[in-house]
Amino acid sequence: MVRLAPPLSQRKSLTATPEKDPFMKAIQFLTNSSEAGSAIEVELATPTPEGHDILVKVEAVGLNPVDYKVRPGEGADPKTLGFDAAGVVVSGGDKTSLFKEGDLVYYAGDVTRPGSNAEYQLVDERIVGKRPSSLNAVTSAALPLTALTAWESLFHQLGIDFDARDKNAGKTLLIIGGAGGVGSIAIQLAKLAGLTVIATASREESAAWCRKLGADHIINHHGEMPAQLRELGIDHVNYIANFNKVDGVWEAMGEMIAPQGGIVLITGHEKHLDMAGQFKMKSVSISWEFMFTRSMFTTDDIIEQHRILNRVAELVDDGKILTTANDNLSPINAENILEGHRRLESGTSIGKLTVSGWA
Amino acid sequence: MVRLAPPLSQRKSLTATPEKDPFMKAIQFLTNSSEAGSAIEVELATPTPEGHDILVKVEAVGLNPVDYKVRPGEGADPKTLGFDAAGVVVSGGDKTSLFKEGDLVYYAGDVTRPGSNAEYQLVDERIVGKRPSSLNAVTSAALPLTALTAWESLFHQLGIDFDARDKNAGKTLLIIGGAGGVGSIAIQLAKLAGLTVIATASREESAAWCRKLGADHIINHHGEMPAQLRELGIDHVNYIANFNKVDGVWEAMGEMIAPQGGIVLITGHEKHLDMAGQFKMKSVSISWEFMFTRSMFTTDDIIEQHRILNRVAELVDDGKILTTANDNLSPINAENILEGHRRLESGTSIGKLTVSGWA
Repeated sequence: MVRLAPPLSQRKSLTATPEKDPFMKAIQFLTNSSEAGSAIEVELATPTPEGHDILVKVEAVGLNPVDYKVRPGEGADPKTLGFDAAGVVVSGGDKTSLFKEGDLVYYAGDVTRPGSNAEYQLVDERIVGKRPSSLNAVTSAALPLTALTAWESLFHQLGIDFDARDKNAGKTLLIIGGAGGVGSIAIQLAKLAGLTVIATASREESAAWCRKLGADHIINHHGEMPAQLRELGIDHVNYIANFNKVDGVWEAMGEMIAPQGGIVLITGHEKHLDMAGQFKMKSVSISWEFMFTRSMFTTDDIIEQHRILNRVAELVDDGKILTTANDNLSPINAENILEGHRRLESGTSIGKLTVSGWA
Repeated sequence: MVRLAPPLSQRKSLTATPEKDPFMKAIQFLTNSSEAGSAIEVELATPTPEGHDILVKVEAVGLNPVDYKVRPGEGADPKTLGFDAAGVVVSGGDKTSLFKEGDLVYYAGDVTRPGSNAEYQLVDERIVGKRPSSLNAVTSAALPLTALTAWESLFHQLGIDFDARDKNAGKTLLIIGGAGGVGSIAIQLAKLAGLTVIATASREESAAWCRKLGADHIINHHGEMPAQLRELGIDHVNYIANFNKVDGVWEAMGEMIAPQGGIVLITGHEKHLDMAGQFKMKSVSISWEFMFTRSMFTTDDIIEQHRILNRVAELVDDGKILTTANDNLSPINAENILEGHRRLESGTSIGKLTVSGWA
């Protein structure tokens, strides 16, 4: 911390920084379900940050499929979920240096630790960014997980250089699942990087959304994608970012990818996959992107997520990236968190769903 | 060509450059077998180079598993096989500029074109290198395919920077199949790049060979590799180059690879593979390396193979890379080519086998 928070007893006079209450509300899931009663509100001792951790007072949380994927299974302990969050820094551990109390921040957190569905949360400052000054807590909370996933997919896993517009000109990227949370950010980032973007969308509404975000071409991932590409005059694409399901499109990806091309995937698959054939003949690279790898393993470059989130905030403030926040529930309580899980599970939500404020 | 070859009629006086005979010997496979009679010697019209092609008088050829993998199937036309070669430049097409007549060259060729088991061969000059001046034709012919595969695996697919010794220091590379043709070059290149190299070998003889080439540690790929790594004090490796079979070691690779690590593969696999699990959680990249991709698709960067072969030749001449040539048959005729195929198919040959000279 640039300015370390003074001990609680001396902090009554600092009005800019929120008070840390000794106890806090948290929403905990008891079972792997989104039915009423499977999450409850509890009161827990407010934690104290140590080491690289900062304590953040949570103002808004964003929901993602990972929320319902990691609910506790049978016999597991109750779990405070929630990953995307926006809030204000309260205090920091002895190894913190990136933020000061009162800073407005956003982050996607760490899947191995208690989540953001709580009044206060500990988070390693190296995975936290200064949130866009042009956005409020709600619209900020919609961004981190999808922005980190999109950024790491394109600029780390596929090895595209964000700042090399000239080099990227003429290179083609197929984004499977363009209208989803990650796809919506990836379209914008790829266009900023100078690529030609073909996004897939299966409904008119989602196709229009992809075009608005800058996609050059739209094809339908429920149809024959290679044939649709050829109709656009494109035989092969240099990159494929598949933010959708993998199983049904494996062979099509092998056909569409260019020699020496790169593919990035973010979801699992049901069937075991045949990686040889086209992929081998073309010397293709296939990468998994999992936004939580850096925090889960505390990799040497964990601070990269701090840098990415700061850079995304600048792009938002410069009007170059639109937030994908679309719907908000308030306040943050068990009922609304459960309602959020149900909406995500239905697979019909458009843009990002957030939950904000404390009753 | 720096100096274009004059028309044949005017070339009688140029004694430094071999004469191009109107007809040439070639060894052609009739069937997918290494039994006597499945390859025969034929006489073909000597081809004339056009465009990017040079005509090379072949002095020696190196054998690789690809030779017996692409023999003609039932009903297919007879095929001139042979990929690795060393020879002398006779003439060049109108778009050539990298070589002049009389240059001593080596190359791994193009799997889609007539091969090097012939007195003369056409080859795109952009995949040809100046051969090491410290080696003869036989020891040169042992190098190109394995050197290109090893170089592209480490420095293109895994993205290691050959010239960044400081950055690579402390990074670990596991080479599965260290004593094989590709592994033998890869160990040397990886050590030159500053990596810590763990090579796998299953026999004492091959373990000694890997150590001689510079491997820091040896483990046995027939044993429990993750446990053997841990015994060395290594939990995870940053890179895995698997120049051996994939099927039996898939889960072990998932366990051994570090978060954000890279894996390169060069062989196919029998079973479909589960790519999720460890690979996803660790955001791992998996690349296929196929040395013939560049020539098969005439990629924009096809000339990279010319550069790699020249660079490898310099490293050989500087005493930094040992050729892995081990055994030679002579002359180049149907009998010896078939004998070479049989030895490779047996899987017991050590180092590289070459065939040289014309009767």
